[in-house]
Amino acid sequence: MKDSSYSDTSNYLGGVRHRKHPSEVSPDADKANRSNLLVNDRNKYKSMLIRAYSSVWMIGGFSFIIYMGHLYIWALIVVIQIFMARELFSLLRRSNEERQLPGFRLLNWHFFFTAMLFTYGHFLTQQLVNTVTSDKLLCQLVSGLIKYQMFICYFLYIAGFVWFILTLKKKMYRYQFSQFAWTHMILLMVFVQSAFTVANIFEGIFWFLLPASLIIINDIAAYFFGFFFGRTPLIKLSPKKTWEGFIGASVTTLLSAFVLANIMGHFQWLTCPRKDLSTGWLHCDPGPLFKPEYFSLPALMHQWFPWKEVAILPVQCHALAFGLFASIIAPFGGFFASGFKRAFKLKDFGDSIPGHGGITDRMDCQMVMAVFAYIYHQSFVMPPSFSVEMFLDQILRNLTIEEQQLLYEQLGNFFQARQLLQA
Amino acid sequence: MKDSSYSDTSNYLGGVRHRKHPSEVSPDADKANRSNLLVNDRNKYKSMLIRAYSSVWMIGGFSFIIYMGHLYIWALIVVIQIFMARELFSLLRRSNEERQLPGFRLLNWHFFFTAMLFTYGHFLTQQLVNTVTSDKLLCQLVSGLIKYQMFICYFLYIAGFVWFILTLKKKMYRYQFSQFAWTHMILLMVFVQSAFTVANIFEGIFWFLLPASLIIINDIAAYFFGFFFGRTPLIKLSPKKTWEGFIGASVTTLLSAFVLANIMGHFQWLTCPRKDLSTGWLHCDPGPLFKPEYFSLPALMHQWFPWKEVAILPVQCHALAFGLFASIIAPFGGFFASGFKRAFKLKDFGDSIPGHGGITDRMDCQMVMAVFAYIYHQSFVMPPSFSVEMFLDQILRNLTIEEQQLLYEQLGNFFQARQLLQA
Repeated sequence: MKDSSYSDTSNYLGGVRHRKHPSEVSPDADKANRSNLLVNDRNKYKSMLIRAYSSVWMIGGFSFIIYMGHLYIWALIVVIQIFMARELFSLLRRSNEERQLPGFRLLNWHFFFTAMLFTYGHFLTQQLVNTVTSDKLLCQLVSGLIKYQMFICYFLYIAGFVWFILTLKKKMYRYQFSQFAWTHMILLMVFVQSAFTVANIFEGIFWFLLPASLIIINDIAAYFFGFFFGRTPLIKLSPKKTWEGFIGASVTTLLSAFVLANIMGHFQWLTCPRKDLSTGWLHCDPGPLFKPEYFSLPALMHQWFPWKEVAILPVQCHALAFGLFASIIAPFGGFFASGFKRAFKLKDFGDSIPGHGGITDRMDCQMVMAVFAYIYHQSFVMPPSFSVEMFLDQILRNLTIEEQQLLYEQLGNFFQARQLLQA
Repeated sequence: MKDSSYSDTSNYLGGVRHRKHPSEVSPDADKANRSNLLVNDRNKYKSMLIRAYSSVWMIGGFSFIIYMGHLYIWALIVVIQIFMARELFSLLRRSNEERQLPGFRLLNWHFFFTAMLFTYGHFLTQQLVNTVTSDKLLCQLVSGLIKYQMFICYFLYIAGFVWFILTLKKKMYRYQFSQFAWTHMILLMVFVQSAFTVANIFEGIFWFLLPASLIIINDIAAYFFGFFFGRTPLIKLSPKKTWEGFIGASVTTLLSAFVLANIMGHFQWLTCPRKDLSTGWLHCDPGPLFKPEYFSLPALMHQWFPWKEVAILPVQCHALAFGLFASIIAPFGGFFASGFKRAFKLKDFGDSIPGHGGITDRMDCQMVMAVFAYIYHQSFVMPPSFSVEMFLDQILRNLTIEEQQLLYEQLGNFFQARQLLQA
């Protein structure tokens, strides 16, 4: 759902970014909207070829990384983050002002790596706890790191804050404060979404892969439906988007969600959560969500289908919710990005991917989706958080042997007292 | 450490806010700095009287609320938050642009209350769990609320997000996006600090009151040292601040921290954590931090002091760390606010408190301090988070009786297996 790529890509082929592209903001642009639709674009086949070529490479690389496992996907997310931050940091820069502010960009990256330590440090140490349970000392070291990690991050942040204030320069105040706010907005956006994405990955690749795939499918479907049938403009913010593309994509995404969830649901590699930082194969009880339930088809349908009953995984119903969100709400992430580019007269956020624009142009809807997937999973999918196994695990890991014994005795005493009361 | 009040307050007495106060930004202002210092200000006694009058009222009201207890302090924080948000929301508004954007301010408050639900909803339900342990059903309802609260907040946020995009108006994009970013910055600032403050309150009023008092003391001391001795300008951002004020205030704050911690440490009302939402008196084992340790004074000092030994609470050492932060780092919160006001040519953030400016003008250092106090407390003061009592409490609260029995049996089995292994 990217507008950059729907608009006249022919101008873009040379790799030149048009920071002030006149047709994007002139009042005539609106009237010309209908003739700008992809259906009427003469260069559309050429630009489609370039898009298709880089898309195939991206999807191929992505599949390989999924196959490699959780740690590699995490690394991919980090790389994407760094590229996004780089694109966004340089977006609202004014080079003439920054020439007078040496070290100003460094400060951005200082905040970036502080945010990274904050987001992942916590996560990393939590996973490490699970990895090294056997070694008591290392375990204590790690739990010490968890404890002080917050303080270290705060200290680094405050250092950056003081640095910012001490480098404030007369007449540049306004520029510096705007950049400071802009840096915070970028970090908020980039790290909120990636923290959720990484959390999804370790809950099971399924919960990361399905939402991400649905966004990609919705993007591609919207492009093709708009390409062949698009006639009615959808929203002024993105003049190349059409109702035909939107509706076609929604239907395609919903169907794909239902089918994909069934396929992905059969691989334990995708459905099992990963509780530590190892990379070996995963085996787990897939849980009721991934156990097929059999429904017999009505007699009427027997003439078209060879099967008498279908196997549905309960998770497919959740997948439909993901599909609905991916096709109806997530595109607003794209509209937001379009509006932002329009407001600041940008063509694209960057030029890293031929035919697509910058990394950020491809990530806008993914961000909205990742947060949804995480919160949906936490709210409606996660098994109840208190179980006998969990307590047993935590008690054996976190208490000394003497404390374990004490707890055991106290529980026993409590049960006796309760029985006496009831008698 | 507020610059607004240090600068020519005489112009301010009428209650008029000078959005574009020429002397604040003209290049001549700097040269005139030395003659602008409080020492040389002819109106200083008049403005001091007004400041003193409102300060006495504020401190009186504040003390009364501390006496009333945790819930009332929390309510105070919420009221301050609402006033701060109101001041900050209206700060960068351009009324001519907003006349064309009906409902635009409402959106800000929609985000504000969503943030409030997010910050406090979680906290409230956690405290409620402790309040209603006796009723199993209510307990489950509350834990259900905890679970869906995140989803509800996310839903509300997305609704605001979509609302924002649908109300984007041509030619206003840039203004609307800036306001959107500004709203997020305000909410981030206001809610991060208040979430930490409220967490501090429930850890024990001590952990809220001591840091807040130190900031107030540092403010007042800096004012008086600057008032009587200030000659050397400290930082260009706040031309009324002097090294004399800064150093005098630092010493005063450190001493006060040491003394205040001893006084406050003797009241269980202040030192006990509050685990639920009741309002009754608190009794608890004060813990080793608040148990006096006796040190005998060296013979040399006996001639000046009537006592042969002093009682020091271990918490007084932590208080020194708070004092150091309050006098050296927290003022940067004030410099930041000064710089911001200078950048956007504002005199004050508001005019709620006579002689002081807006609520925000009084809260800038408090915000930096509250976050520090929380993180310091979590990192260096909190007792280890896993204890036999905690597990016993959680097991009895969160597991059914059958599950408790099962856990007990499994623990027993585990111990037997371990003993067998060792034998």
